Amino acid sequence: MKVAILGYGTVGSGVFEVMRSNPEGIARRAGEDIEVKYVLDLRDFPGDPVEEVLVHDFAQVVNDPEIGVVIEVMGGVEPAYSFVKEALLKGKSVCTSNKELVAKHGAELLEIAKQKKENFLFEASVGGGIPIIRPLNQSLTADEIQEVTGILNGTTNYILTQMRDEGTDFKDALADAQAKGYAERNPSADVDGYDAGRKIAILTSLAYGMQVDYEDIYTEGIAKITREDIAYAGALGAGIKLFGTSKTVEGKVYAMVAPRMVGKEHPLYVVDDVFNAVLVRGNFLGDIMFYGKGAGKLPTASAVVSDVVDAVKHQGVNVMTIWNSRKLELADINTLKNCFFVRVPEHEREKAQSLFEVDCEVKVQEISGEYAFLTKPMTEGSFKKAASKAKVLSRIRVENVKGAGEPM
Amino acid sequence: MKVAILGYGTVGSGVFEVMRSNPEGIARRAGEDIEVKYVLDLRDFPGDPVEEVLVHDFAQVVNDPEIGVVIEVMGGVEPAYSFVKEALLKGKSVCTSNKELVAKHGAELLEIAKQKKENFLFEASVGGGIPIIRPLNQSLTADEIQEVTGILNGTTNYILTQMRDEGTDFKDALADAQAKGYAERNPSADVDGYDAGRKIAILTSLAYGMQVDYEDIYTEGIAKITREDIAYAGALGAGIKLFGTSKTVEGKVYAMVAPRMVGKEHPLYVVDDVFNAVLVRGNFLGDIMFYGKGAGKLPTASAVVSDVVDAVKHQGVNVMTIWNSRKLELADINTLKNCFFVRVPEHEREKAQSLFEVDCEVKVQEISGEYAFLTKPMTEGSFKKAASKAKVLSRIRVENVKGAGEPM
Repeated sequence: MKVAILGYGTVGSGVFEVMRSNPEGIARRAGEDIEVKYVLDLRDFPGDPVEEVLVHDFAQVVNDPEIGVVIEVMGGVEPAYSFVKEALLKGKSVCTSNKELVAKHGAELLEIAKQKKENFLFEASVGGGIPIIRPLNQSLTADEIQEVTGILNGTTNYILTQMRDEGTDFKDALADAQAKGYAERNPSADVDGYDAGRKIAILTSLAYGMQVDYEDIYTEGIAKITREDIAYAGALGAGIKLFGTSKTVEGKVYAMVAPRMVGKEHPLYVVDDVFNAVLVRGNFLGDIMFYGKGAGKLPTASAVVSDVVDAVKHQGVNVMTIWNSRKLELADINTLKNCFFVRVPEHEREKAQSLFEVDCEVKVQEISGEYAFLTKPMTEGSFKKAASKAKVLSRIRVENVKGAGEPM
Repeated sequence: MKVAILGYGTVGSGVFEVMRSNPEGIARRAGEDIEVKYVLDLRDFPGDPVEEVLVHDFAQVVNDPEIGVVIEVMGGVEPAYSFVKEALLKGKSVCTSNKELVAKHGAELLEIAKQKKENFLFEASVGGGIPIIRPLNQSLTADEIQEVTGILNGTTNYILTQMRDEGTDFKDALADAQAKGYAERNPSADVDGYDAGRKIAILTSLAYGMQVDYEDIYTEGIAKITREDIAYAGALGAGIKLFGTSKTVEGKVYAMVAPRMVGKEHPLYVVDDVFNAVLVRGNFLGDIMFYGKGAGKLPTASAVVSDVVDAVKHQGVNVMTIWNSRKLELADINTLKNCFFVRVPEHEREKAQSLFEVDCEVKVQEISGEYAFLTKPMTEGSFKKAASKAKVLSRIRVENVKGAGEPM
C-alpha cells in the first residue's frame, strides 16, 4: 500500500517519522507493507530525509492510482477540504488530524467515503494520541450517551495548572506556555475556548449521530480566571479546568465550553498539565474515562498512523460512522441548571444574599474586601439576571464541590 | 440478524436487558435489527420475560442457520470452550465475556474465526465496561507497546479502598465486600490475584501478538496486606493497589500480578473502589489510561453488546486480531528491578541496614517496635536473598513514591 502525506509541519513530520521508525510493527498490524510515496508541501527541506519523496503539486498525488490512502495534516479548512474531497471522490481513503475540517465538513466527507466504499478517519482530531473517536464509534454502541465532557485543550490546562502550582496570574502563565512552545503567539484559539469548541462539536456529533455546529456552542475561555479564583478553588479542595461538555437533560442536548471549578470526586479533577481526558457517561456503562497526551508531535502522529493502519485493513469496506448532516438543535443554555462560585465586593454581601440562593460562603485568609460564595443550583438564565444587578468580580460554574448541590 | 445468548446468569440477563431496552439505538449502530432468538440455560425462569426464548439444548442453537452471532456468557472453560468452538466452526461469530476461556484458548478461537471469515470478540473479558481490547487491537497500532498495567479486579480494589478509608483489616474488608456482593463466598480467584492474572495474560498476549499463559505469570494477592502497611503507605502519600503488569525491559517481557505501593504521581493512584483502569505506555503515545466500571451486570453487558454490534457490522469479514499461538517466553522476574517497602522488627534495624540498600526510613506515629524503610532499586532475586536472612514482617513493591528511586 502506498500513501501520501499532505503537509510536512509538526504532525506531518511526526507521521513520516513514526511510519519510518516502526515499519514492521505497522505492516504486521495492517496486513501489508505501507510506504510513504509522497509528502506534499510547498516548502523545500534541504537535507531532510523527506526530500526523496517531497512533491509540491497535489495533482501528482491525487492522480496517482497507486496511492490508496491520503493523510491530511495541513490544518485549516482550505485547501484541506478541497484536497480531501477530491481524494475521496477518486476512491482514496483519507486520514486527518484536522479538527477544523472535521468539525465543519465531517458529515459530508463521511458520506462521500461511504458512497465510495472507502474511509474518512479522524482519530487524531480530538485528544491527540488518546483513542476517543474510534471507541465512541465502535465500542460505546450499546448505550445511550448521556454526557461527554472533556479537557480537550492542553494549552489551557497547562496554563491553569501553572497558575495553581506557581501562584502566577493568567498573563504570566500564558507567557510561560508560549516560551515553552505550548501556546501560539496568537493564543486566542486556545485560551478563548474555540479549539475545545471544535472538539466538543465533533464528539457531540458522533455521540448523537447528527451535525453539531461549533458556532452554536456557548463558548467561554480562561482569560478571566484570576489568581484569586484559583486560591478560592484551593480552599474548596477543588481545581479549575476548561471543560467542553455536552449533555442530555430531559431529552434536550446542551453543549458548552467553559471553565469549571471541580472537586476531587470528579474523574477529571486529576488531569493536569498538557494532559487531556474525556469522560463519557452511558446509561448502562456509567462513567468511562480516556486519558493521555492530548497533543504533541508523536502522540498525534501515532493516532494518525493508527487510522492509516485501519484504512489499509478496510480497503473497499466502509467502516460505518453515524454522523449525518441533519443539524442537531442544541437547547438554550439559559434553561440549563448549574451551581456557581461567585465573588462580589464586601459591601454587596447583603445584596448578593438577596439576589442569589447562597449555598455556602467561601473564605481565603489572604483575600479581603470581598464576599465569595457558592450558589445552589440555578438556571443560567436566572443567574445572568441576578448577576446583572450586582458587581460580580468573577463567577465560575461548579461541579462536584462539597456543599454545592447537584452539578450540571 | 438473529443471535443467541448462552447463559442467563448475571451477565447474560444483563445482555438480554440491554438488547431489549435500546433496540433502535443498537440497530442504528449495527445497520440492522438484532433479535435475541434463544437464551440457553439449564434452569427455568418462570415468569421472567426470557421464558419465551429460553432453550435447554445447545444443539438447537448451533444448528439453527438463522443464528449469526452466539453470545457466550456462561463463564468457565467447559462447556464454554466446546460450545464456542462448534459455533465458530459452523460459521457463526462469537462474543464472550469469559476471561478464563479467552486466556486459555483465545489464540486458537481467533484462528478459527479468521479461517471462517467470522469474528471472535471479547471486549468484556477485561475491564468490564471499559473499552480496552478494541483500542489495543485497533487504535494503538502505530506504537511498540512498552508497558500495560492495570487495576483489573474491582473486588480487591474495593477491599483495599475500604481498608484505607475505614481503617479496617483485610478480613473485615473482605467480609464487607462479600456482604455487598462484590466478593464471592470463595474469594480466592479475586484476592489471590488469579482473576487479574488471566486478564493481564490476555492484555499481554494482545500487546505482543503471542500467547502468554497465565500460569507463567508470577502472581501475588492482597491477603497479606495489613492495616499497618496501609498506614505506612498513607504516611508516604501513597496508596496500595493490586496491579497486573507487563513490561518490556531491554527487550525482555516481564509480567506479574502483585500489590504495589503507588504515589500520587502514578496515573492509577486515583482509581478507587470497584473501578478498574488500564494504563498503556507506547513509544510514541506516551501514557494512555482507560478508566471505568470494571465489573457489574450492565457495564459488562454493554461491552458484550458493543461486540455484538461489531460482529453484525462485520459479517463475513474477519477483523484481524494479532494473537498467534506461539508462546511468548516471559523473562525470569528474579532479574527485574524494583524498589521495595520493607518492615522488620526494631531489633533487626542494623541487620536490615546491612542487608538492604536503604533509601529512606518510613515512620508512622502509632506503630512502634519495628523499622520500616524503602529500598533503592534492586532485583527481585537479590531482594529475595537479602530478605531470607531477616525477619521481614511485610514487603511491598513501590512505584512513584518520593525518595524511592526508579519504579519497575
